[in-house]
Amino acid sequence: MKPDGGADTGAAAEGRAAEDERAARAALTRVIEPGDRRAGQWLRQFGARELMARLTCPPGDEPALPGATAKRLAGYRIRAEAAEPHGDLAAVAAAGGRFICPGDAEWPTQLDDLGDARPIGLWLRGRPDLRKWVLRSVAVVGARACTPYGAHMAASLAAGLAERGWVVVSGAAFGVDGSAHRGALGAGGATVAVLACGVDVVYPRGHCELIGRIAEQGLIVAELAPGDHPTPSRFILRNRVIAALTRGTVVVEAEYRSGSLVTARAAAQLGRFTIGVPGPVTSGLSAGVHELLRGEAVLVTDASDVAELVGDMGDLAPDRRGPVLPKDLLDPVSARVLEALPARGAAAAERIARTAGVTPDETLGRLYELHSLGFVERHGSHWQLTQRVIQGSNARRGGT
Amino acid sequence: MKPDGGADTGAAAEGRAAEDERAARAALTRVIEPGDRRAGQWLRQFGARELMARLTCPPGDEPALPGATAKRLAGYRIRAEAAEPHGDLAAVAAAGGRFICPGDAEWPTQLDDLGDARPIGLWLRGRPDLRKWVLRSVAVVGARACTPYGAHMAASLAAGLAERGWVVVSGAAFGVDGSAHRGALGAGGATVAVLACGVDVVYPRGHCELIGRIAEQGLIVAELAPGDHPTPSRFILRNRVIAALTRGTVVVEAEYRSGSLVTARAAAQLGRFTIGVPGPVTSGLSAGVHELLRGEAVLVTDASDVAELVGDMGDLAPDRRGPVLPKDLLDPVSARVLEALPARGAAAAERIARTAGVTPDETLGRLYELHSLGFVERHGSHWQLTQRVIQGSNARRGGT
Repeated sequence: MKPDGGADTGAAAEGRAAEDERAARAALTRVIEPGDRRAGQWLRQFGARELMARLTCPPGDEPALPGATAKRLAGYRIRAEAAEPHGDLAAVAAAGGRFICPGDAEWPTQLDDLGDARPIGLWLRGRPDLRKWVLRSVAVVGARACTPYGAHMAASLAAGLAERGWVVVSGAAFGVDGSAHRGALGAGGATVAVLACGVDVVYPRGHCELIGRIAEQGLIVAELAPGDHPTPSRFILRNRVIAALTRGTVVVEAEYRSGSLVTARAAAQLGRFTIGVPGPVTSGLSAGVHELLRGEAVLVTDASDVAELVGDMGDLAPDRRGPVLPKDLLDPVSARVLEALPARGAAAAERIARTAGVTPDETLGRLYELHSLGFVERHGSHWQLTQRVIQGSNARRGGT
Repeated sequence: MKPDGGADTGAAAEGRAAEDERAARAALTRVIEPGDRRAGQWLRQFGARELMARLTCPPGDEPALPGATAKRLAGYRIRAEAAEPHGDLAAVAAAGGRFICPGDAEWPTQLDDLGDARPIGLWLRGRPDLRKWVLRSVAVVGARACTPYGAHMAASLAAGLAERGWVVVSGAAFGVDGSAHRGALGAGGATVAVLACGVDVVYPRGHCELIGRIAEQGLIVAELAPGDHPTPSRFILRNRVIAALTRGTVVVEAEYRSGSLVTARAAAQLGRFTIGVPGPVTSGLSAGVHELLRGEAVLVTDASDVAELVGDMGDLAPDRRGPVLPKDLLDPVSARVLEALPARGAAAAERIARTAGVTPDETLGRLYELHSLGFVERHGSHWQLTQRVIQGSNARRGGT
């Protein structure tokens, strides 16, 4: 038994330890390159604080880190010395962002499928809850130098998915990625951009406004520490995060050996759906997709094909789905948004926002969360309570 | 033991019986609609002569034909009375054509896979041996009202297949069919048109010249009696013959519920390859192909994909293939064409024709037959002996 005063001290110490571990993970996002499985093993073996301690101990006391080459270790040590996690955390928080770690309520547990290549943590910008949003998400990726056909298909697939209540995840690049984000935003939908650089870095520069809009209306996700810049390998490794977060990856246009195919293959390896949109075989930009379609990928021609494929039974029979969480456990803002939905029929997001007294962007974020949780459904541009929620309310009303 | 003179009489009688059976089959092509399984059963049960006899006996002696409705039987009887098989056979022969039946050396035995829906016989125009030609054949079919993309793909696939020594089979229709025939002819290749009308009927009229060229350089095949005209059901039923003759059916462009899909599905049911060329999902003319590709069909993007798919091992490793027939059993013209090939290296068809003293069209027909039999290979616009044939000759030369 601890002494009376000791309980508080113990809890405080536990809290401090958790914060130290979080700060160490934040630091490690600057030290370790994405997808480094060896570092993932150390992290699992020693924990983040201990790993940082071993990387920052005085040069004489060379730390025991199994399997590390001297050269790689030297690089890690230089970066570890320079890391200022508290500064990063404070700066991102000041800009309205946050840092999430495995074990946090907002951590998308499907990332654990990446094993030792799981991100150390994720830097986020945007209001919505990442975990809830990506529960019902699909990646739409493809060529940067896409054709008008590719841009059209990305936008119309993303819009169609958004209208069916699916969150569209992509990489904020030019071409297909940008069209997918814009298609989702244009349909009043939810979209997540996973960057290959720091959450505060705008890349590509030409997507400054688009990335800003995603941060306002959706979510920006980065594995790399604030200020870090993209490199070719970071683009490739970012793709595994897109694949792991989503239920499936749709490749719209891709040349042979393109990064989008890496995402698609990562998706297949993770047991997610790999999906391809065919195009003219006379177009080199469809060659990669056709290669996928001859292998593991499923051919789709529109958003309803995708939704049918990745959707659970609930998508085919919406009234069979009910909330996965009691209403009482919703946070106050989500509860207010839910209360603002009409008891019968559907309402536009703007009207729900006005009724709830919540900003439109915040409302949209909450509606997609409530969708993932099974409380509401989206039909075109309108939202309504699911049949189960209505039945539940009626039953309660009848019972009192 | 038969008496001495009786042997001759017996052989002559046997020959007459075979000719009567052939004439009865020729008559039945005018009486029975293509693909009539019930009639196929009668044919199997009674033979052609007996079936014709039962259909033409005096009205009082109603024939016993199990399962025939009175109405259908009346129709058959009217047509059977009007049939003039000897006139048809003579007219087609006079125009350089012929009629082949199951059991004939030229009968493509793969048609037997159609069971009771097997054609009763086939009317042919053109020099080449149908059976040998279709041993290595692929169907290229698709929409009549195809797009420029469809026309381009049909022509380039057919040309590529022709250059690889494959015979291109199609239906002589406008659009994809016509482009496929033209692509094969343009590449100095072999092509077979299976009509939904009599072998002497030009349909569509606009393809008068094309059909004439196919009759000169390739083969025209018809299940219907001379002079018969196409009907919607005859188009549909013609497709089963295209599917059964070939190793696989490539659908280039097809709308939902189009006749080309019928051919493709017939191919799948017969254990042939069903193959699709994808296109833009924004094109209704690719919708049917994409539907196939989501099911049983294999996606291809060029002729080498098709050849790899339908080809036997020999196509991947040409020097492992050898003739399936001893050289001595070749007919004199084929033997002369074979002798005209250079012992080493390749030669153009025209040069081979000059050396052999055979017309170019005849030579081409023989070369494709020799290809099917494993004696020669086509490489681009040139032909050469297969490795096995060269080795066989060398071995013989070494042995003498």
